[in-house]
Amino acid sequence: MKAEVLSIGTELLLGEILDTNAQYLSRELQNLGFDLYHRVTVGDNVERLRRAFESAVARADLVVSSGGLGPTSDDVTCEALARALGRDLIFSEEAWKTVKAQLDVRGRSPCDSDRKQALLVWGATFVPNRVGTAPGQVVTDGGKTVVLLPGPPREMIPMWEKDVRPVIQRNFPGLKPLFSRHLRLVGIPEALVQEAIGDLFRSPDPTVAPYVGPGEVRVRIATRDSDERRAREKVAQVEETIRRKLGKYIYGSDGDDLESVVGNLLARKGLSLAVAESCTGGLLSHRISSVPGASRYFKMGLIAYSPGVKRECLSVRKEDVERGDAVNPEVAVSMARGIRALAAADIGLSTTGFAGPSGGAPGAPVGTVYIGLVWPDGDYVEVQRYPGDRSSVISRGTQAALALLWRFLTRGLEE
Amino acid sequence: MKAEVLSIGTELLLGEILDTNAQYLSRELQNLGFDLYHRVTVGDNVERLRRAFESAVARADLVVSSGGLGPTSDDVTCEALARALGRDLIFSEEAWKTVKAQLDVRGRSPCDSDRKQALLVWGATFVPNRVGTAPGQVVTDGGKTVVLLPGPPREMIPMWEKDVRPVIQRNFPGLKPLFSRHLRLVGIPEALVQEAIGDLFRSPDPTVAPYVGPGEVRVRIATRDSDERRAREKVAQVEETIRRKLGKYIYGSDGDDLESVVGNLLARKGLSLAVAESCTGGLLSHRISSVPGASRYFKMGLIAYSPGVKRECLSVRKEDVERGDAVNPEVAVSMARGIRALAAADIGLSTTGFAGPSGGAPGAPVGTVYIGLVWPDGDYVEVQRYPGDRSSVISRGTQAALALLWRFLTRGLEE
Repeated sequence: MKAEVLSIGTELLLGEILDTNAQYLSRELQNLGFDLYHRVTVGDNVERLRRAFESAVARADLVVSSGGLGPTSDDVTCEALARALGRDLIFSEEAWKTVKAQLDVRGRSPCDSDRKQALLVWGATFVPNRVGTAPGQVVTDGGKTVVLLPGPPREMIPMWEKDVRPVIQRNFPGLKPLFSRHLRLVGIPEALVQEAIGDLFRSPDPTVAPYVGPGEVRVRIATRDSDERRAREKVAQVEETIRRKLGKYIYGSDGDDLESVVGNLLARKGLSLAVAESCTGGLLSHRISSVPGASRYFKMGLIAYSPGVKRECLSVRKEDVERGDAVNPEVAVSMARGIRALAAADIGLSTTGFAGPSGGAPGAPVGTVYIGLVWPDGDYVEVQRYPGDRSSVISRGTQAALALLWRFLTRGLEE
Repeated sequence: MKAEVLSIGTELLLGEILDTNAQYLSRELQNLGFDLYHRVTVGDNVERLRRAFESAVARADLVVSSGGLGPTSDDVTCEALARALGRDLIFSEEAWKTVKAQLDVRGRSPCDSDRKQALLVWGATFVPNRVGTAPGQVVTDGGKTVVLLPGPPREMIPMWEKDVRPVIQRNFPGLKPLFSRHLRLVGIPEALVQEAIGDLFRSPDPTVAPYVGPGEVRVRIATRDSDERRAREKVAQVEETIRRKLGKYIYGSDGDDLESVVGNLLARKGLSLAVAESCTGGLLSHRISSVPGASRYFKMGLIAYSPGVKRECLSVRKEDVERGDAVNPEVAVSMARGIRALAAADIGLSTTGFAGPSGGAPGAPVGTVYIGLVWPDGDYVEVQRYPGDRSSVISRGTQAALALLWRFLTRGLEE
């Protein structure tokens, strides 16, 4: 079964908006088991849009469009589809009720142009919009299905997930959906992942593929199967094989992030954390505190952007601060020790380095980051060197600090 | 003159990649003065790709594609275009030299499949790739021009800007390029911008339009003109009108950001800054320190995520910390005063509030943020209330703190 995605809106062609809907809908349709061969973007022009609907319906079994359903005169999606299918537009009292209800929530009384949003292609099923005013539509024609969705992602996504996707799944029963799982690894370069499980990358089913993300490697396991249980088992078996070889690098899966995983570990172990940052400038504290409930374990962050602050607030020794512009292993450990004491926390974590563009010292060029970790009966320091610009060094240094803390909390630093 | 954008790659149709190239090229082509009516995405399939090139060439004067120029067998863009135009592929010694030079930089010796990248459509001009291995191509056919660009944005953008765009400008001399300027405003809601300059929004030339960004309003002024000087003058006149009415809210233009503008003001005035954050959790320090050279004026940040830290490190009074879960105007001012003293800085800036999802106190629901500012001879506190989730409250609170500091540094807080 073939599907096609149609993105509608002159603002897309002007480059004012990044078309995230097309990516989202492509992934969804592939996951459901459709083949997707074309994606087309057209502006708010009724004739060009009519031709786009005609070619899409000719090529595909399912056409999903987003955009152009609003009340203004440049919203012409519905009219274009009606022309393409040779059908009339019908005013739907039922659709009009949902439009009025949404206007009411906004404290607006309906005006003439709003009525346009209750016009349906003859024979269409309307789909209520729970977030905005413009309803969606599902139209079938000679074995083909056309779905019209609103353009704003916050309206489009819930409508697709709650109302449209289940209908599509019912109407196209023979599909083989895609089941996939992403494992997320830190502390291991892609080349070593390749070395350890490269043979799996050639497996035809489930397929296994590595992706390099910011400061981590992701491994995707995927299979297509009409039987969900069988699919899950196939994926789980491959996951087990990967975990046997690389388990100690896997911090999470699918939507997990390192700050949440670390936060859960701290909360579960009843440990508190304090952070002292130099080169990462607050991003490490920001990521840690962005997790809801972080105040249970995160006590304090300190951004020591001057040598005086490092000395006076964190008790870093004068001779260490003065060496290499305060970028050396001793400063990293002293900062972690200092913040741990100041906050009376169980664990102190620190960063110091050169984010650039200027700076650097003999043996520590721009891109060098030291990460310090201090706990009740020990300390540790790690050095990293990153290519790239200031923002890249800051974000990679932050990710590495979280990865070090994760390693400490899960398997210790003895290797 | 019409242009069309073709995005090539199966990974796009799988939804694995967000198509930022299409947005970039759309904007560029519109700016050059082309009309863009269609954008098409096709996978790495030579026959579907051939048909996509045929329709694009039939509809438009200029077709720009990105993707599918690499060495592997699924890179078929060049072959598809050759078939569409009924031309042969020719091995170019000149192109091969540049491919080999790029492989050499990577310490790789050329292999058989690499030679594919030196195949040109008969009659094409090749465009060297300064970043990756695959060269681009420019082909003309019966008055139409087709440009093949590589897919990775870091290769595509420099090739377009340095080599291809100048050629297009020369080959299409009658175009009216778009000149635009974005003014960036803080501290004023969109409705008041509408009230002050709403009449300009109806002007046909230059066009003026407001956009709501995260914690700011942007006003775009744009005109099309073949004479660059005349265009600049028209835009400058409208800008002057807007500045007369709203100048005190305009912190910058085009690519400016608030942290750089504030940083420049601090550096120019020779003032130093220290920051104490509660609900913004480090994002404020991160934005301030993300500006190259921030260490000249940014001395210290402190994230006080526990009442004890607020009391002991920032000398906030016990009774204030205990009231409303440490979210009140007195805590905000005390935090700013405390960090200013601790860092021996000229200015202290602070945030305290409820980012959610849980929390809140009587009179201060989730979304409430207090911002404190203390300078040598005064202090100020501002309260904001934001809808939305944790990350939205954190980012809007951060933007508001920077906006308050900007207002203080430019026109004072006396209104």
